[in-house]
Amino acid sequence: MPDQVILLLSGGMDSTTLLYHLRETNPKTPLHTISIDYNQRHRIELNYAAQLSPLAGATSHRVLPLGLTRIGGSPLTDPDLDIPAAAKGEQAVTVVPFRNMLFVTLAAACGETLGAYDIYLSPVRDDYEAYRDCRREFYDSLEASLRLGASHDTTFRIHTPLIERTKVDVVTLGLRLGVPYELTHTCYEGTRPACGVCDACSERLDAFRANDTIDPLEYEYELRPDP
Amino acid sequence: MPDQVILLLSGGMDSTTLLYHLRETNPKTPLHTISIDYNQRHRIELNYAAQLSPLAGATSHRVLPLGLTRIGGSPLTDPDLDIPAAAKGEQAVTVVPFRNMLFVTLAAACGETLGAYDIYLSPVRDDYEAYRDCRREFYDSLEASLRLGASHDTTFRIHTPLIERTKVDVVTLGLRLGVPYELTHTCYEGTRPACGVCDACSERLDAFRANDTIDPLEYEYELRPDP
Repeated sequence: MPDQVILLLSGGMDSTTLLYHLRETNPKTPLHTISIDYNQRHRIELNYAAQLSPLAGATSHRVLPLGLTRIGGSPLTDPDLDIPAAAKGEQAVTVVPFRNMLFVTLAAACGETLGAYDIYLSPVRDDYEAYRDCRREFYDSLEASLRLGASHDTTFRIHTPLIERTKVDVVTLGLRLGVPYELTHTCYEGTRPACGVCDACSERLDAFRANDTIDPLEYEYELRPDP
Repeated sequence: MPDQVILLLSGGMDSTTLLYHLRETNPKTPLHTISIDYNQRHRIELNYAAQLSPLAGATSHRVLPLGLTRIGGSPLTDPDLDIPAAAKGEQAVTVVPFRNMLFVTLAAACGETLGAYDIYLSPVRDDYEAYRDCRREFYDSLEASLRLGASHDTTFRIHTPLIERTKVDVVTLGLRLGVPYELTHTCYEGTRPACGVCDACSERLDAFRANDTIDPLEYEYELRPDP
């Protein structure tokens, strides 16, 4: 385990589970959490990340601003575009161009200042299809770019320990770790109660159901499978 | 030449010269300029970039915000740190971690929305020493990362046509092209008249002197070599 690590914490289910996992497996390693405020429609997740970080025993928490609104093209950052319902199979339109690349690079910039060169983030297997920047080969390449672009001759490592896990696996792990899922935020609409119909809500509800557990979150509307 | 191109325009000497060079060599190719507002101490350069872009005949100009202040570590983004004078040989402290990587990735994010996959920027040979992210091998790696991280299967190209040129060469080229250097901004202190003693001013003044030309900018203090 490295001297100290950085975790990109969105406040969602996956990164929060990874936070608790890292605290369990390496309780003594200083862990700095970073959230990115990119004016996302579900900006409310930042409030949950700020609560979860100290609750899990992280060493520090930072919120870095990143203005993606003027880039446009995604309903996650453009309030004029609608979030598609899960049923429509249009997850691809929620892509924010190069979001993970920008997030990791910002974390690395912070890491240079902190002297922390190990960055954790939590893409999962379910993200592959719609989001190319959730694949390991991309992170291998990004590690090389960080090494070449760093101010000093340093080796950054990008850790994606959940990349081969499904969201169902993540919830299984998190339930064992006692993750307070009622404090995580998932809904793309950014509402509480959660909308229950966007892709993000739909995947989350499925993952809890597959674990034979009730999601502790309140939902506006819950699509239930036929009995 | 590609269908349309993006140029990272800081408003400084090098990127402005590249802007005029691209307009001369490819006058009909749509060219979108992008400046990054990272709350740099020399934020005044953004005003000059905004004037230079339409003056040179660019197709569009965008300013993208990028909050680096909370990352800290560099006097270019932390107002509490002093800019070293050129004489001190401390250019390395002005490094902003991963600045060019963040800039290029933001330009690529914009490029995805615009359908422009050719990104120009203007590192020059003099930047090698202090700034590792001004080397071509870094940009080759970054091109690979952009290809893997793009939302669609696309080939981004990062063009650095001045990377083997010195600042003296750049001024030679720019004088031939009629670049209005009085509208470019270089000084790290961000003042007009320019300070004349920071690294950036010092290199600029040297480049004009080597071209036997007077820099049209006004300086607060001009270090002149002994006669």
